[in-house]
Amino acid sequence: MTESMEREEQKRLQEQLINLLKENEIDAFREEFLDMHPYDQGQFFEELDEDLRFALYEMLSPEEMANIFEQVEVPEEDYQDLLSEMHPMFAADMLAEMSTDDAVDVLNELDKEQVASYLTIMDEEAADEIKELLHYEEYTAGSIMTTEFIAIKANQTVRSAMQILRREAPGAETIYYTFVVDEQKHLVGVISLRDLIVADEETMISDVMSERVVAVSVAEDQEEVARIMRDYNFLALPVVDFQQHLLGIITVDDVIDVMDEEASDDYSKLAGISDVDDTAGNSPFGAAKKRLPWLIILLFLGMMTASLIGRFEDTLNQVAILAIFIPLIGGMAGNTGTQALAVAVRGIATGEIQEEGKLKLLVREALTGVITGGSCGIAVTLVVYVWQGDFILGALVGISVFATLIVATLTGAFIPLFMHRLKIDPAVASGPFITTINDLISILIYFGLATTFMGYLK
Amino acid sequence: MTESMEREEQKRLQEQLINLLKENEIDAFREEFLDMHPYDQGQFFEELDEDLRFALYEMLSPEEMANIFEQVEVPEEDYQDLLSEMHPMFAADMLAEMSTDDAVDVLNELDKEQVASYLTIMDEEAADEIKELLHYEEYTAGSIMTTEFIAIKANQTVRSAMQILRREAPGAETIYYTFVVDEQKHLVGVISLRDLIVADEETMISDVMSERVVAVSVAEDQEEVARIMRDYNFLALPVVDFQQHLLGIITVDDVIDVMDEEASDDYSKLAGISDVDDTAGNSPFGAAKKRLPWLIILLFLGMMTASLIGRFEDTLNQVAILAIFIPLIGGMAGNTGTQALAVAVRGIATGEIQEEGKLKLLVREALTGVITGGSCGIAVTLVVYVWQGDFILGALVGISVFATLIVATLTGAFIPLFMHRLKIDPAVASGPFITTINDLISILIYFGLATTFMGYLK
Repeated sequence: MTESMEREEQKRLQEQLINLLKENEIDAFREEFLDMHPYDQGQFFEELDEDLRFALYEMLSPEEMANIFEQVEVPEEDYQDLLSEMHPMFAADMLAEMSTDDAVDVLNELDKEQVASYLTIMDEEAADEIKELLHYEEYTAGSIMTTEFIAIKANQTVRSAMQILRREAPGAETIYYTFVVDEQKHLVGVISLRDLIVADEETMISDVMSERVVAVSVAEDQEEVARIMRDYNFLALPVVDFQQHLLGIITVDDVIDVMDEEASDDYSKLAGISDVDDTAGNSPFGAAKKRLPWLIILLFLGMMTASLIGRFEDTLNQVAILAIFIPLIGGMAGNTGTQALAVAVRGIATGEIQEEGKLKLLVREALTGVITGGSCGIAVTLVVYVWQGDFILGALVGISVFATLIVATLTGAFIPLFMHRLKIDPAVASGPFITTINDLISILIYFGLATTFMGYLK
Repeated sequence: MTESMEREEQKRLQEQLINLLKENEIDAFREEFLDMHPYDQGQFFEELDEDLRFALYEMLSPEEMANIFEQVEVPEEDYQDLLSEMHPMFAADMLAEMSTDDAVDVLNELDKEQVASYLTIMDEEAADEIKELLHYEEYTAGSIMTTEFIAIKANQTVRSAMQILRREAPGAETIYYTFVVDEQKHLVGVISLRDLIVADEETMISDVMSERVVAVSVAEDQEEVARIMRDYNFLALPVVDFQQHLLGIITVDDVIDVMDEEASDDYSKLAGISDVDDTAGNSPFGAAKKRLPWLIILLFLGMMTASLIGRFEDTLNQVAILAIFIPLIGGMAGNTGTQALAVAVRGIATGEIQEEGKLKLLVREALTGVITGGSCGIAVTLVVYVWQGDFILGALVGISVFATLIVATLTGAFIPLFMHRLKIDPAVASGPFITTINDLISILIYFGLATTFMGYLK
């Protein structure tokens, strides 16, 4: 099937489902709808208007709705509205049926009183599991883990472990890794389902499990969790407290979402925009709201640049030609700074740059600045000399480019490293911010040199 | 264990292993080393110098070395050197033992003659599997899939399927999803190991398998593959040809690498640098080489800006104060363009923006430009008026900001969309490129307006 045919097909199915909803054809609707993948169900749900959503809630059980709701991605503030559309008992049951980690994600978007009221009317066991997860800080391992894992004992046979797995499979987040705990719930080992099914049924778990189990602390940064799962190709990672008690597991699908979120976050900040995603259906006002804060900050930084140039008004009045190279020098400074920034931010994010590697990186960046600055400086000198027939002017612009590129490269690398040391997310030293700072520096260098050597200019 | 303690521990182990290598203590080395996770083995290998690598090759079998080599990440040109250090037969055996997709990744970095010679001396079956994958284009589903999957028939029982799984488990990339094919190898269904182990052993596969199986074409872009696996939370995805024959599978760990690669790629391009990663151990010359091409291009674009301002030299000579707002206007234009660019590039990458949504996005961006331009324009007018006491100058700068922001926002959105239409990766319209183009446009608007209304300026 070609892609456009597939899209046609989907559109047809969607229209058919909407008709069945409108005509209240419960059985026909359920037969078609429940046959779809939960992700597609979620996509369908997101497209519905309020009336059709009400019709849908009538036709589905809280459990069926839970599968859909796990897939729904709407702006954070909309979760509250969606839940209040449902009967409170229906909503509470749905939350109880969702994967604990997904339910917690939804609850985190609600008012405290609302959370409390749902937890009160909810099935007690589910409420307890959710409460346990609710208090972990955002962006930590605890906030993305689930407590629906299967734990077994070391002193049981493979056969009895398989029985547990078969029994627990429907409720567990994954059964492909099973974690082994001792009597005090300390994590002592791990065994994959792959190893379980090839092992002899009478073997003891302690003989086939791996004791080299990589675990993360519940307070670990989610970015570090993603790094470990990527490097070690795990499908699930156990989460422990400081005494090595097994608290939960993180599955690979959650880590993929984290990676996506972090990549989009770094990207947004490099572009100077508060959130680059959820474009679809966003109004121009919504888009402007995300961009204006940055633009206003930059406006005032730009005013500082303007007032800085204003101080050199005498120089400018005498040699107006100087003005034509302002964008060139400022642009080069901004770009080289952004390059150095990007390398440093990615290096920190991927864990390539550790504390001990920072000085090395700065030295490397300084030398890189000398090389790029030297090359560009010579090129500029020659071009300006040939073009304007004034070697002194050429040298002035060239030397400014040389000095600017070294300083800008160092600034671009230093600021994120310094922020990381202060435990601030280095990505907030966003692209436009670095660009504008380097703009300022470049003008100071350029006009400083020009004023000093003005006597020599034609 | 705290993180620094863990690092201490790792360092100690590494030193111990190096000593064992140096003293040729085969048994002690193997016992310690083979107990490590392959990723850690790979990290250890990357740190070794040539002599120690030779010692290592002596101590390990091709199969053991294959596990390590699958994890090794070195600059592309180094794979050739590493392989030529090994005895050719050892290297060929190692390649044969590697996962087919990983072996193909390595072979893709070598000269054609070298590839041919390894394939000739290699085990024939492995060579055939590798040859099959070698001809798929980079960045397609075919290039990241593996042929080591398990396929079963619909008309067999769960019991017999489990027997196949147990037998094939050691060689297969994953056993958690099993794909069902008919006599002609057409893909007809899928069943997870989870469903297999809870099913009754005498049930027929056709009764428990899911027929709604999502597959990708072998020519599909790897970014689209990653998007599907992320949205549907799959652990493995089947790859088919145009007649729906099952050719291979893609596993989630490969998709994580793709996501990482693509995110880093988009990020690099936004920063105007050819590859933001592999910072560690990179020389300043290496770093400069990756940045200079962009800087040189920007230098010449900057010269165009300079010559454009040069055309307004008369205006500048008469009203030198105009020069002080050049960086402000250019900076705002560059930033707003980068914001719009980032939104468009991400929207295309995540599949949020389809062909039909492009016009809508452009209209949205134009309106966003009107809002941000209007707000910033009014702010600038007032600030400049208060500061310079010249309302006309204020209005001139403010109107320039207003007009520039609209045009720059549209340019930032339009260029990536246009490139996408031309089937060029939209991310090549990198941040610095858009910034510089918008610099040019902003100056044209600013000086154009200034020259026209110069008579009114103080």
